[in-house]
Amino acid sequence: MNTTRRPLAIRMHPADNVAVVANEGGLAAGTVMPDGLVLREKVPQAHKLALTDIEAGGVVRRYNVPVGYAKRAIAAGSWVHERLLDIPAARALEGLPMATVPAPTWEPLEGYTFDGYVNPDGSVGTRNLLAITTTVQCVAGVVGIAAERIRAELLPLYPNVDGVVALEHSYGCGVAIDAPGAEIPQRTLRHISMNPNFGGELLMVSLGCEKLQPDRLMPPGTLPLRPAGATLNNVCLQDATHVGFMSMVDDIVQRARPILERLNARRRQTVSASKLVVGVQCGGSDAFSGITANPAVGKMADLVVRAGGTVMFSENTEVRDAVDQLTSRAATPEVAEAIVRELDWYDHYLARGRADRAANTTPGNKAGGLSNIAEKAMGSVVKSGSAAIASVLPPGEKLRPDQTGLVFAATPASDFICGTLQLAAGMNLHVFTTGRGTPYGLAACPVVKVATRTELARRWHDLMDLNAGRIADGEQTIEETGMALFKLLLEVASGRQRTWAERWRLHNALVLFNPAPVT
Amino acid sequence: MNTTRRPLAIRMHPADNVAVVANEGGLAAGTVMPDGLVLREKVPQAHKLALTDIEAGGVVRRYNVPVGYAKRAIAAGSWVHERLLDIPAARALEGLPMATVPAPTWEPLEGYTFDGYVNPDGSVGTRNLLAITTTVQCVAGVVGIAAERIRAELLPLYPNVDGVVALEHSYGCGVAIDAPGAEIPQRTLRHISMNPNFGGELLMVSLGCEKLQPDRLMPPGTLPLRPAGATLNNVCLQDATHVGFMSMVDDIVQRARPILERLNARRRQTVSASKLVVGVQCGGSDAFSGITANPAVGKMADLVVRAGGTVMFSENTEVRDAVDQLTSRAATPEVAEAIVRELDWYDHYLARGRADRAANTTPGNKAGGLSNIAEKAMGSVVKSGSAAIASVLPPGEKLRPDQTGLVFAATPASDFICGTLQLAAGMNLHVFTTGRGTPYGLAACPVVKVATRTELARRWHDLMDLNAGRIADGEQTIEETGMALFKLLLEVASGRQRTWAERWRLHNALVLFNPAPVT
Repeated sequence: MNTTRRPLAIRMHPADNVAVVANEGGLAAGTVMPDGLVLREKVPQAHKLALTDIEAGGVVRRYNVPVGYAKRAIAAGSWVHERLLDIPAARALEGLPMATVPAPTWEPLEGYTFDGYVNPDGSVGTRNLLAITTTVQCVAGVVGIAAERIRAELLPLYPNVDGVVALEHSYGCGVAIDAPGAEIPQRTLRHISMNPNFGGELLMVSLGCEKLQPDRLMPPGTLPLRPAGATLNNVCLQDATHVGFMSMVDDIVQRARPILERLNARRRQTVSASKLVVGVQCGGSDAFSGITANPAVGKMADLVVRAGGTVMFSENTEVRDAVDQLTSRAATPEVAEAIVRELDWYDHYLARGRADRAANTTPGNKAGGLSNIAEKAMGSVVKSGSAAIASVLPPGEKLRPDQTGLVFAATPASDFICGTLQLAAGMNLHVFTTGRGTPYGLAACPVVKVATRTELARRWHDLMDLNAGRIADGEQTIEETGMALFKLLLEVASGRQRTWAERWRLHNALVLFNPAPVT
Repeated sequence: MNTTRRPLAIRMHPADNVAVVANEGGLAAGTVMPDGLVLREKVPQAHKLALTDIEAGGVVRRYNVPVGYAKRAIAAGSWVHERLLDIPAARALEGLPMATVPAPTWEPLEGYTFDGYVNPDGSVGTRNLLAITTTVQCVAGVVGIAAERIRAELLPLYPNVDGVVALEHSYGCGVAIDAPGAEIPQRTLRHISMNPNFGGELLMVSLGCEKLQPDRLMPPGTLPLRPAGATLNNVCLQDATHVGFMSMVDDIVQRARPILERLNARRRQTVSASKLVVGVQCGGSDAFSGITANPAVGKMADLVVRAGGTVMFSENTEVRDAVDQLTSRAATPEVAEAIVRELDWYDHYLARGRADRAANTTPGNKAGGLSNIAEKAMGSVVKSGSAAIASVLPPGEKLRPDQTGLVFAATPASDFICGTLQLAAGMNLHVFTTGRGTPYGLAACPVVKVATRTELARRWHDLMDLNAGRIADGEQTIEETGMALFKLLLEVASGRQRTWAERWRLHNALVLFNPAPVT
């Protein structure tokens, strides 16, 4: 039953003075709401409706927090759009509540499993992929051709291998390799090569004269992929042994063969859901993101945490305005301090570039009813559910989160940079919510896309993996949708279900976060 | 005849106190040079040999300029490596010679032509390509699949079209779109869509909710691709008309068809060599870059300028230490001031990121005998030949250089960023010199690769298009090699010869220069 035909506006908290119009096509002027409120003007779908008169300068409250201040008096029944609001001031990073919220006392969730590829380091892959690590963009053309040949000639011989991923990136010389922040893209590339979906294997292609030398990318003796004494499995294009282009391609293809043999011999094993490392993200958001899909993801996150697994949430600029919610939910004061440290670093990074904080909200966000970053933040943080924040991960710094549970992986909000950094932190499953719609996909990891609205889920029926719009339609609760998503994740993790992005082979680029200048 | 078997060290100027060893494998300790100098130690190929005793603190002179100061006394016959040298201080940007060198009084070079595709705006393509412009990385997966379908299904029907180029890039939301410097990637994308090799056609794919809206990327009425009143030929994936993934792909493919019809009907016409817009670049350099390939490129540049054409040279950090050579060669004081303005902006950009100026020199450069950026600069600037610098192009700012002749296109030195910005400035032919070797290629434009050494040209026989190593071998003069390169460019521009990168379809990524932060 689709209940959106009767006028419906969703209020997130009883103290809110705005609600969000759920009906497709919005609601016309003169519409009478179930409680008798009459609309003074048309309010588009997903946009805010004033439930009470709001005086000039008065707070506009949603999620029980101020999302703006009225520039002029707003009468009940009005459309509360961005041009009527002053953005709340940035929340200062001093005097925050630190680890003040007691962790939820949850029963552990037991009995949930998936079938994955168990790696030597104990991590578990959801896919069985051959990755080709590269040190520099210079080699990308050659690696691309070698990967095509491996796909065409070798993969049919190794049917248990899911694919070949060329880890192409824009890193090259002409970067300030020792400037502050320059370690971030380097460690990101290092750690992404060890994503659980790559089976603990390494095939590297380098040029020879690049700044990021193989030994710098993979220091000897410090990494699972390069235990003490192990030589690197590296094809260096400038090596004197390479005579002609095809010898380079042949060398890469030949080196791939024994790895494919080993990968092909692997079998999925049933493991606990605690081996999930789920990265959550939203993009192309609308006001429904914070009402349907993101709260459902939050419920899923709680389930994964209760099952002993790991959930990473990210997007510095999108959670910045809800920082007090994060610090208060930190498991320990040290974790709260780490949250502050990361967001403070990011504040300074943005200030150095004189970036306008308000610029995060895109035209699409605004058209979708999100007035500003403050409102967007409330809807974004809800993806993290309600677990205590167990640890904080600076961008690209660690191969895996320090511990299981809910992790704040501090990354830029840019979809591709965030996804790349989550991959580098050991993500083996990606959940992406969208209200406006994006065909986002990654070669290295399945991406489960969750639509915020039924209309989008219908129209993009072969791009969206789950419809959280049923929440707004009154057909499913947030909890039910969260559980459905959790179960879908286990199916996808087990390879029993492929995501739409996998079926169409939709692969977005890896994009490195490099705060240092190029030269 | 290969003359490198006898000991050979090349001195660039009579006043130099070092020369560069030309022999493959270097020269052993005890080797007696033709002038009687005895080597005190082994000197590797392409590395510097002290021709005289140099006292501690003394200047080490090459190209008749200081490339370093001796940290301790260096005896004649020694290997002068980077650890013996202090780097010269950065040349200040005040008190420079401004437009002091009279322009060469050259005879115009007439009678040289190529067969190109004449565009409505008067520019000339060297290839006949269908480009697909994109507003945001989100659409890259869909566009990649559509491009593959166009290649497989449509291109065979339009044999006169050389290929399909999806202009994929990492720009997305999560960028500070209005921060200082953020205009650079936007105008780069705008102008790259109008590269002469794309025939003045536009096929754009947008998402719908991105910050960089189609109207912002291609403002109405201000561009050749969007004359006043013209609507954009844009496929917006979020449009309500798209039901399902395949409808998006189909839409792109269908929109491509009439453009392919028009492109296919075009014929090459004989035009003057003055229609060449050559971008020159070096990468994977060694000490031979500045002795063989780059001087030959300089001679080619002079020929193109004499023929009335345009040559762009770039790479801010690699020319920075030769700034006085550039300002003195400026055609007018205004051009000299523009050079200073661009390099000053770049100095500040690097200082803001606390980048180490010395970090430009890569491990490969150093292994190849280039001690530091000062020495590298001397070898880099020589690519620009000896014409007066006619104009200066800030990164991505203009669709075409203001005028023909020698142009300083101020870009970062990063190969891929520089190439991307030169494409955005109307480059229709790219010349790339390399000493260590790189398989560099671009989808949008032929790249002619010039090897600095015969050994590399032999080993990479199917990647290097011209061997400038013959200069060091004594087989060809710099002038002869420059003329051979000029004639090769006309063949490549005419489509009669394809470069190796084209034959293998080696395509490196477009990489945008974005000085603004990500968010």
